[in-house]
Amino acid sequence: MKKISQPQQPATIKDIAKIADVSVMTVSRALNNSPLVTDETRDKIIKIAQELKYKVNMSAKSLVSQKKYSIEIIFSTMSSDTSSSFMATCLRGVYQKLAPDYNLVIKDLSNGYMHFNLSRVDGVILVSQQESDDDFIQFANSEGANLVVINRHSSVDNTINVAVNEVFGAKSAVDLLTKQFKNIALINGPDNIQSSIDRLAGYEESLKTANYQIKPELIEIGLFTSIGGYDAMVKLLALSTPPDAVFCANDEMAIGALKALREANLEGKIAVVGFNDSDISQYTTPALTTVRKPIGKMAELGTELLFNLIDKRLPEQQNYNLETELIIRDSAIVS
Amino acid sequence: MKKISQPQQPATIKDIAKIADVSVMTVSRALNNSPLVTDETRDKIIKIAQELKYKVNMSAKSLVSQKKYSIEIIFSTMSSDTSSSFMATCLRGVYQKLAPDYNLVIKDLSNGYMHFNLSRVDGVILVSQQESDDDFIQFANSEGANLVVINRHSSVDNTINVAVNEVFGAKSAVDLLTKQFKNIALINGPDNIQSSIDRLAGYEESLKTANYQIKPELIEIGLFTSIGGYDAMVKLLALSTPPDAVFCANDEMAIGALKALREANLEGKIAVVGFNDSDISQYTTPALTTVRKPIGKMAELGTELLFNLIDKRLPEQQNYNLETELIIRDSAIVS
Repeated sequence: MKKISQPQQPATIKDIAKIADVSVMTVSRALNNSPLVTDETRDKIIKIAQELKYKVNMSAKSLVSQKKYSIEIIFSTMSSDTSSSFMATCLRGVYQKLAPDYNLVIKDLSNGYMHFNLSRVDGVILVSQQESDDDFIQFANSEGANLVVINRHSSVDNTINVAVNEVFGAKSAVDLLTKQFKNIALINGPDNIQSSIDRLAGYEESLKTANYQIKPELIEIGLFTSIGGYDAMVKLLALSTPPDAVFCANDEMAIGALKALREANLEGKIAVVGFNDSDISQYTTPALTTVRKPIGKMAELGTELLFNLIDKRLPEQQNYNLETELIIRDSAIVS
Repeated sequence: MKKISQPQQPATIKDIAKIADVSVMTVSRALNNSPLVTDETRDKIIKIAQELKYKVNMSAKSLVSQKKYSIEIIFSTMSSDTSSSFMATCLRGVYQKLAPDYNLVIKDLSNGYMHFNLSRVDGVILVSQQESDDDFIQFANSEGANLVVINRHSSVDNTINVAVNEVFGAKSAVDLLTKQFKNIALINGPDNIQSSIDRLAGYEESLKTANYQIKPELIEIGLFTSIGGYDAMVKLLALSTPPDAVFCANDEMAIGALKALREANLEGKIAVVGFNDSDISQYTTPALTTVRKPIGKMAELGTELLFNLIDKRLPEQQNYNLETELIIRDSAIVS
């Protein structure tokens, strides 16, 4: 009689428990990275699971829990308007707090949300950079999606926001400059970006506090890019009374401004301050005085709050505000 | 008699076609960004679809097509071993070639692939930075997953690879230095990363071609970070015969090396060359000579090939090689 070959049954959590000589609960904990299992036990269980080619049955799991095991991170734009370091830091922060078995989907809002299908995910983190994102926020709310907005306070009702006090951060940078300088310029990002609006507000608030006049000719748009910051600085240097200090609304623009100063033989003659404290800012010449924005922390907190929402636990508050820190390096000192 | 309120039926593609006074096919094309529809028609249809709150029924679509409408991009690591600009440039490249209706899932391989469930996606782009990723590649093949490996040539059979000729790129950088300098150092990345192995090979090849001796004391590890490059440069400067030129295996390390030179009052006295041509390299002091690596193009081509695989069209070749370009700026000139 011919032996009928049986397709091999997929390994189950019970098979792993048997071989590892532990309970099914221990296996489940180990596979879900629970702190209740020792590293040694987890390593042993993971090794057995790999040998058995064990796979979580997501469809079955989804059917039981009614969850999609996916969350989505949406950027206002993935174009160069969002700096690489900002994008990567947000992603690392969210990924670090991602629950096991969860997929992280990444999306760009700049071409609209026509093809977005919020029913494919359990929740959304919107990294919001502009007020026009409120359209999408209203759409997400109308769909009953779990949503946390980070990087901006949305005015849409009942939205959970995690943002940084950017007006205060910008004011702290300009306050440092008003102590030493008289004619302080601003190189700002694009008008429609919330960070530009907030950093302008901080700049104006600081000047008012110092009883300085706000001079429109000292405010240039640098588009958040190095080349934009360079061009803006060239324009400022061409003024009949050029500035003695410049606050740049991000570090990339500050680096472009430093290059323009160097080319004009004015390195170290005009103070420059940036914003974000991106990786590169301590390696510029001169090292950049800047405002540290806790981007990673913002993304981590946003993700924790989103998983709370998914588990039907409402956050204790609606608006979370993280503080900036002024990092003083050489670029704010002039000779 | 009480009127019974009916739940509103979800809008269909037919409803949109009726209001727009076009065929169902035209609506379908417009919603899928087909070039066969004019921008004007597409805008009109999208506006109507939004007003009707039209949503693609992904479950039905999936049932018909047997597709998941998701692809995955997996990085060897999402930690700082992968620079922010590299990560963001890969993501932008893939996203740009993503088919409409597709979700892009992002994953980190550094904690193993235990929780990866390749049956949740139609295909995978692995941004591979180390040989140990071959384990995962074998696993993906055994699962029958559609897979394209970018950034490294995997030796696993039948793998589609899109990589950059990094050995040649590194050699071209060091060739530039051997024309002018005698004692050329290398600041390399971590040993286990393929890019480090390739850039060392290019360095050695160039020195051999120039009949230079390879001196182990001139090879330092800078871990691909600015601080690592700084520390490595400090060590090289402490040698009894310090180098007269340094090839750094990425731009971040080159920026750290420039800082160490500045602090030692050796700015412009020792040539420095980087690798990648990241955004910042034209804004350093001096501007950085570097090797441009077509990261975005590599990600775009990898995504196109993956969608071909998903549509059962095998690529014409197994290995794709993209060329680097030497970008000459001030840092390779000494006074």
